[in-house]
Amino acid sequence: MSQKPSIPKGTRDFGQRNMAERNYIFDTIKKVFRTFGYAQIETPAMENLSTLLGKYGEEGDKLLFRVLNSGDCFSKVNFEDYRNEEGGVNSVALSKEICEKGLRYDLTVPFARFVVQHQNEISFPFKRFQIQPVWRADRPQKGRYREFYQCDVDVIGSKSQVNELELVQIVDKVFSLLDVNVLVKINNRKVLTGFAEICGFPDKVVDITVAIDKLDKIGLESVEEEMREKGLTDGAIAVIEQILKLSGSTSGKLASMRSLMNGGSASGLVSETGLKGLDELEELFGLIDAAGVKCPVEIDLSLARGLNYYTGAIFEVKALDFQIGSICGGGRYDNLTGIFGLPDMSGVGISFGADRIYDVLKGLDKFPKSLASSTTLLFACMGVEELRYVLPVAAALRSEGVSVEVYPEPSKLKKQFDYAEKKSIPFLSINGGNEVEAGVIQLKNLTTGEQKSFAKTDIAGMKVFMNI
Amino acid sequence: MSQKPSIPKGTRDFGQRNMAERNYIFDTIKKVFRTFGYAQIETPAMENLSTLLGKYGEEGDKLLFRVLNSGDCFSKVNFEDYRNEEGGVNSVALSKEICEKGLRYDLTVPFARFVVQHQNEISFPFKRFQIQPVWRADRPQKGRYREFYQCDVDVIGSKSQVNELELVQIVDKVFSLLDVNVLVKINNRKVLTGFAEICGFPDKVVDITVAIDKLDKIGLESVEEEMREKGLTDGAIAVIEQILKLSGSTSGKLASMRSLMNGGSASGLVSETGLKGLDELEELFGLIDAAGVKCPVEIDLSLARGLNYYTGAIFEVKALDFQIGSICGGGRYDNLTGIFGLPDMSGVGISFGADRIYDVLKGLDKFPKSLASSTTLLFACMGVEELRYVLPVAAALRSEGVSVEVYPEPSKLKKQFDYAEKKSIPFLSINGGNEVEAGVIQLKNLTTGEQKSFAKTDIAGMKVFMNI
Repeated sequence: MSQKPSIPKGTRDFGQRNMAERNYIFDTIKKVFRTFGYAQIETPAMENLSTLLGKYGEEGDKLLFRVLNSGDCFSKVNFEDYRNEEGGVNSVALSKEICEKGLRYDLTVPFARFVVQHQNEISFPFKRFQIQPVWRADRPQKGRYREFYQCDVDVIGSKSQVNELELVQIVDKVFSLLDVNVLVKINNRKVLTGFAEICGFPDKVVDITVAIDKLDKIGLESVEEEMREKGLTDGAIAVIEQILKLSGSTSGKLASMRSLMNGGSASGLVSETGLKGLDELEELFGLIDAAGVKCPVEIDLSLARGLNYYTGAIFEVKALDFQIGSICGGGRYDNLTGIFGLPDMSGVGISFGADRIYDVLKGLDKFPKSLASSTTLLFACMGVEELRYVLPVAAALRSEGVSVEVYPEPSKLKKQFDYAEKKSIPFLSINGGNEVEAGVIQLKNLTTGEQKSFAKTDIAGMKVFMNI
Repeated sequence: MSQKPSIPKGTRDFGQRNMAERNYIFDTIKKVFRTFGYAQIETPAMENLSTLLGKYGEEGDKLLFRVLNSGDCFSKVNFEDYRNEEGGVNSVALSKEICEKGLRYDLTVPFARFVVQHQNEISFPFKRFQIQPVWRADRPQKGRYREFYQCDVDVIGSKSQVNELELVQIVDKVFSLLDVNVLVKINNRKVLTGFAEICGFPDKVVDITVAIDKLDKIGLESVEEEMREKGLTDGAIAVIEQILKLSGSTSGKLASMRSLMNGGSASGLVSETGLKGLDELEELFGLIDAAGVKCPVEIDLSLARGLNYYTGAIFEVKALDFQIGSICGGGRYDNLTGIFGLPDMSGVGISFGADRIYDVLKGLDKFPKSLASSTTLLFACMGVEELRYVLPVAAALRSEGVSVEVYPEPSKLKKQFDYAEKKSIPFLSINGGNEVEAGVIQLKNLTTGEQKSFAKTDIAGMKVFMNI
């Protein structure tokens, strides 16, 4: 009995068309990363569970794929030790006994581990990018997979806003090359802290941010109500309202926020942290101006993204002409490597969401048409004699970088034509006894129907005909 | 307490230099694959264990990394069911209950699974390549890892020797681009069967091949002794001796072997299978001649490589100027997809050994020197004013594809110099107040010491100076 082939749920095969499209995205991103001096690294798919556990919260621990120890891993396990009160088994505790390794959950923790482990080989600031799959035992659903690629770019060991600038420049350049209009939204964790401080509720940063985030959807009144429910006083809410009503240019907004943070709000409170955050934002926007970033970049006070670990700038990128969540995001974190014993290493990074970017390019029909065909020219196979005749010509064209296939068998011409059509091969060459005798090569443009004959040594002429 | 960071044994981190070198190998290989019309696919890291088990022999099953089912996977397990006779636990049986998925062990079985699963979307002959990591719970040792990349190229759905030719052409081209001298050794499973048949021991193919394989090391007499121990008669050994003493050109050898297979040996026996194998070899060598392959290609009767599944051509590639095992190998298999329910799909493929090729290039010092630096030019940072001055120049150079870094902080120049040196950045640009005032950019070649000043808009001139 043969097996019906299938793959684990939440995982995907990428066929040749799909791969070509994904490679187009990754190659574009890599090219831009490299022009900024970011270098690629790779880490193993499996990390020690001790590296991974406790880094993603309780929920994250559950979503880690664990790899069974090899060999006779149960032989030393006393199952009685893992009975829980109901007489069942404590799977979490038992899995720790039989699994030492897990599949990486993201690229950030492995990167932090890498930096600490290789700190003596690295020159700081360390600029790296990493494009590898990650695995999460999440419930699979539309657009959410159990294996997916992350594409992270980070610099670690420098607190300068020039690093933030570079990330914005990279985003600008990548999406300009991909021909997608985007908006870069920036916030700063210190500014959010500042709001909470000047309204007199320094411990309610998260509540305030979560409420503000809904402004667009539910309106000012509802946002204020939510804050009231979270325990903010009318005075505090009045301060927040002052901020939310700010409008105008970025520099105007920054100036107004500075005055509010500096004792100019209804509360009269000053937030040093908030002022520091505004300094950072002001410096960053100044650099963005000076460097000549082309896409729109704006302050978005509702941006929070994993508020727990960001300490400075927070980024998010939205596609302007396509309805989808953010396609890119990141921020600055001040102590990424501390957990592995290397404190005070500030870093900033962003992650490109390959699957969403794919959906945007598909949705906007922005993939280059040329990706459809991996082969430029197919030599039909008419017989052994003719085959030997075309082989050196095919070899010469390949040496010039042209992608050439030789149909391997003298099948019916219809079948060979079908093959070219299915693979979207744009040029076909059919050479029989007459061509061999005359020493020529026939080329046919399958799109226009145009046909031309070349001396078999005229590789340059053939390339011109094929527009190469 | 901080953790001492480490990775699972047998796995590796690839730092930026290492990655650049590995990318050089993969990019070269990919470029060649593409000029022959092979398209890239990818399959998931995890496959269902039902796909993997039983495909690699008993030993292979043991070496599969199993992934624990997510959730409360032990809750329904009755451990008493898995007691073995000694009162211990049958880990193999239990692991089947708690693990549905495993990490892929090679790229061949996933490829076969892919072809069958997607047979209606594929146009045959299907030419694909695949470069992904595989995992084996093998004992780690020098040169043997638990995670390593395989790089496979296969064509499936065609029996023509043109496919074998293409693989030889690909090998020839790849190693010519990598500047490594190689020898391609070819054998044919049917010819090996033929030897066994004409010496009268058709069931002893493996014994005969294993013995012949040692000819170079132990000499003819010892080979014959080994065959005698395996039960071959003197008459049979005399036939083998006739074959082993064949010398001369490939075509001469082929002709002599044909005569032996055709009843001309001491036994007088005829092997139809052997003659078919010789037809295939003769056709292949004829095509290799016609296509103009540059590297040496020879018949090696001792080549067996996984004799169990090859049915036609068998390939192996040796580096000529460096002592190491084969760096590339493969062959034709007649029923790769049968196990998944699609019979009679003959295929042929080869696999490039990335780690060994890496060792060869390192050993022969063949990596391009340019791989050492990922960045061409570093702009030193002298202060905020100067920084804003150079940012648009850096942006303009990047737009031209030049890899440019801007040092993010106005640190001591010594520190910035050190950074450039450690990263092997060949060009440095230091611009202070004078340069800003004069509107010029200074460039310094750190290798030669040569220095030159450019108008800040003269991007073309800067590129010439940097040899781009």
